[in-house]
Amino acid sequence: MEFVYKAIGVIHSPFKEQADTPIQSALSHAGGSVEVFPEYAGGLRDIGGFSHLFLIYHFHCATGFSLTQKPFLDGSRERGIFAIRHFCRPNPIGLSIVELKKVCGNTLEVGGLDILDGTPLLDIKPYIRQFDCREDARSGWAEGKGTATCRADQYTPRKLKKM
Amino acid sequence: MEFVYKAIGVIHSPFKEQADTPIQSALSHAGGSVEVFPEYAGGLRDIGGFSHLFLIYHFHCATGFSLTQKPFLDGSRERGIFAIRHFCRPNPIGLSIVELKKVCGNTLEVGGLDILDGTPLLDIKPYIRQFDCREDARSGWAEGKGTATCRADQYTPRKLKKM
Repeated sequence: MEFVYKAIGVIHSPFKEQADTPIQSALSHAGGSVEVFPEYAGGLRDIGGFSHLFLIYHFHCATGFSLTQKPFLDGSRERGIFAIRHFCRPNPIGLSIVELKKVCGNTLEVGGLDILDGTPLLDIKPYIRQFDCREDARSGWAEGKGTATCRADQYTPRKLKKM
Repeated sequence: MEFVYKAIGVIHSPFKEQADTPIQSALSHAGGSVEVFPEYAGGLRDIGGFSHLFLIYHFHCATGFSLTQKPFLDGSRERGIFAIRHFCRPNPIGLSIVELKKVCGNTLEVGGLDILDGTPLLDIKPYIRQFDCREDARSGWAEGKGTATCRADQYTPRKLKKM
């Protein structure tokens, strides 16, 4: 069973290479913009009231997939691809939570970007705190990882490799 | 620009009709299972440590899209499709956070299901509390909605219509 989706926009970020792209939006201070193609701009009505958005996008630079990978946050061993956020997935679909700063026509200015420049956008959904913030969640192998052990701008694959 | 994805599994739930399907996983007590096709089962390694998962799936019963819709949580006016979670989206991609109860081979027993039975699965990602729980998020038109004003099992389109 196959499904065909179309780009509804494109994500503009400062990151031209995967090795320099932050590995998590919560660990990124980078700003950028989400350009929604004019034919879909009508769907942005009311979005300005939300401080955070889910972006769903296509990992356009991923080549093939692997069922296990070493996560960038912990290179000590391979983990199942569905237990990590790595881009080499059976379907190369990305998910990020970004901060919405400003709506300018069909463009959203956003912060906390962990996405490669030129990434095709598939969908935007509002982050609704009372549904999406699960304070009691248990984070498996990632428990406690990525919390202030080093500076946010060091959480890129290139820098993590050197640590 | 078009992208082709494949089903990597199927979601089994008690909900045979959209009108009876809870509108949000956080408002659902329903249990069910996520069957990952055997060829992808190797990707489930380490997933058992996580209490919550993001499921990304194809809204297989959606027909066409609309740039504005009345959200189920508040039928008083239409909102932009990117400011709501309605299934009539330009790309019919769904996103739910579910509770992981048990891993049995290539099947995940889950709780908090708001997904129609037979829905094709596209991806699973771990919910990582320190990245995905944004306690300071502002929820726009949805602020305060869906929080204990009626019983959880009443948050289905059919029941909300009658309220």
